[in-house]
Amino acid sequence: MTDDDRLARVALSRLTEPGEAKIASLTAQLGAVRLHALLSDPAQNTPEARDVATRLSGLDPAAELERGERLGLRYVVPGDAEWPAQVDDLIRAETLDHRGGPPLGLWVKGPTRLNDLEGAVAVVGARSATTYGTEVAASIAGALVRAGHPVVSGAAFGIDQAAHRGALAVDGANIAILACGADRAYPTAHHELLAHLGRTSAVVAEVPPGCAPTRGRFLSRNRLIAALSRGTIVVEAAARSGALNTANWATRLNRHLMGVPGPVTSAQSQGVHELIRAGAASLVTRGDEVLEVVGDTGTHLAAPARAPSRRRDTVPPRDQRVLDAVPLARAAPVDSIATTAGMALLDVQASLRRLMRDGLVELMPHGWRLTPAANE
Amino acid sequence: MTDDDRLARVALSRLTEPGEAKIASLTAQLGAVRLHALLSDPAQNTPEARDVATRLSGLDPAAELERGERLGLRYVVPGDAEWPAQVDDLIRAETLDHRGGPPLGLWVKGPTRLNDLEGAVAVVGARSATTYGTEVAASIAGALVRAGHPVVSGAAFGIDQAAHRGALAVDGANIAILACGADRAYPTAHHELLAHLGRTSAVVAEVPPGCAPTRGRFLSRNRLIAALSRGTIVVEAAARSGALNTANWATRLNRHLMGVPGPVTSAQSQGVHELIRAGAASLVTRGDEVLEVVGDTGTHLAAPARAPSRRRDTVPPRDQRVLDAVPLARAAPVDSIATTAGMALLDVQASLRRLMRDGLVELMPHGWRLTPAANE
Repeated sequence: MTDDDRLARVALSRLTEPGEAKIASLTAQLGAVRLHALLSDPAQNTPEARDVATRLSGLDPAAELERGERLGLRYVVPGDAEWPAQVDDLIRAETLDHRGGPPLGLWVKGPTRLNDLEGAVAVVGARSATTYGTEVAASIAGALVRAGHPVVSGAAFGIDQAAHRGALAVDGANIAILACGADRAYPTAHHELLAHLGRTSAVVAEVPPGCAPTRGRFLSRNRLIAALSRGTIVVEAAARSGALNTANWATRLNRHLMGVPGPVTSAQSQGVHELIRAGAASLVTRGDEVLEVVGDTGTHLAAPARAPSRRRDTVPPRDQRVLDAVPLARAAPVDSIATTAGMALLDVQASLRRLMRDGLVELMPHGWRLTPAANE
Repeated sequence: MTDDDRLARVALSRLTEPGEAKIASLTAQLGAVRLHALLSDPAQNTPEARDVATRLSGLDPAAELERGERLGLRYVVPGDAEWPAQVDDLIRAETLDHRGGPPLGLWVKGPTRLNDLEGAVAVVGARSATTYGTEVAASIAGALVRAGHPVVSGAAFGIDQAAHRGALAVDGANIAILACGADRAYPTAHHELLAHLGRTSAVVAEVPPGCAPTRGRFLSRNRLIAALSRGTIVVEAAARSGALNTANWATRLNRHLMGVPGPVTSAQSQGVHELIRAGAASLVTRGDEVLEVVGDTGTHLAAPARAPSRRRDTVPPRDQRVLDAVPLARAAPVDSIATTAGMALLDVQASLRRLMRDGLVELMPHGWRLTPAANE
């Protein structure tokens, strides 16, 4: 795009809040340059519009870009090679209170390029997570990065932090999307984490540098987490948790939505269980189950969970029938076992000897019974 | 039915193992009396058939019934007023290894009548259950009985025992279905429990009194648990747990199948998660969610899990917009909040004062910020 377009987008992003669907729609219809020019016209009809024009005339977008550059930030806009095409899906996504639309641009810090995030997966969840939740989030995030899928999260306390940490352990693309400026650290306790991600992967924000986080900006940020990702995994979420807002965006955007179950006695899993019950999210328990959902077709097929194979599984069918007829507790004589199995006495006797050799039955004073190994 | 029919069924049940689909099918086609007569004919063609005739001629079913009566057992057969019609669904259900079909009859101990079990729900699961699993099983079983639904289980260690215990706490129909004779206690540690259920509710077995439990009889018993119940809940089950066999029967019989999730790190929940992932079981977390599935239509509608309502939910829309624009951490001056909210300065000032009165924002030396209450 032209420099004018980039400058107009910087100015408009200073004028408005992120995720104002109306601005996104006008930008799509008119282009950022024309919209900026129209809004900047000082000969406006209403006081509000005149106020907007005054505010726009007071901005210096070129200086903003320069200042961002000094902070190590670049401003990526539609048309740039780095623009992540998947966020354009937001053009068709809007909430009832008119939040939605693609961002005017994205401020990025770090070497990872946003056009390399097609396979990205968001791992999100409760801030007040349990150790169970953080362990699972870290483990799934690690498995994703190991399989080449960038991990996206919000750098919040709890699940978000665990997801970034789990992805760090494997060293792959690990993207934090913030509700404040990409130069700021919120929460401040994650200053080190964000500095590290900014050096090794990417920290992304829709709001201009220096902006503080607000509730409204969190809600808009959540739409970006969902839009940038091919799928979203909610690891823990209480009923009405903020993570469910990201989940709603994933659904609205036709992205895969997955939920990790937990103890039904844990309030932090309640919201996830509701998502699964409602059919909005599919249940996942391990990284390879997530890969089965978000991977390229047929690339990953999760093997169903398997118990270790048991000794009795290797028993041939004729002996299996006898084995099924041997009592579990008190021993039974061979003729009673033959009756139960509906087989001839001599065949049963031969079978029992083979089963004894395999350690599956034992001969007691009053007959045969199963060994503990057979009853595992 | 005639006494002849009952006597023929007693004899046939001594001759064969429970759940032999071939016998069930022949009984349905010929009637028990005629099948018994045919099999008893000493002029048979094959040695096996002559062996069967010999064995039948050695039985005294009238004495068996009398002996059962002395043990406090009654033998309920199709056509009796007490016959539970729902088990006849087994006529159309058979495994690949020819297990299936309705039982020839059921030995019952206890005051509960089997024809009163239409709303019964099976609560089953791992023998090696966790305390988490047993707590949830007991709680769900209690909720079911409280709502008038009989609880059915298998009196095994772990989840079964917890289900019976939970139902006992509320005092309602609480049915144990055994793989051994209804006069026996297996496991022996549950002698007291079974004696209590036999006095207050019902202990049921397909095999005649005195019979020992075998693996084959457990598999056949599982089909009865599923068939007697309107739905089956699997609370915990490792991959390939025996409880999954009952789950398969529930599916085969078009019964509701439900699963209680647990930590993904728990092997005891793996089998349940697989059932939910496969779409075989629906996820349930509480008694009222089970009632929603198994209750009569519209009787029970589980309220979705709810977080306690938050103070910020009661804020009127105009103040909500301002609240969304107030920073979470560092305070911001009123003009910056007005810009963020896109509202007039005076309106925002008035809003902030109302929000302060409600304890949602606070005025700091350098401006306004959210209180912890607003950020809950």
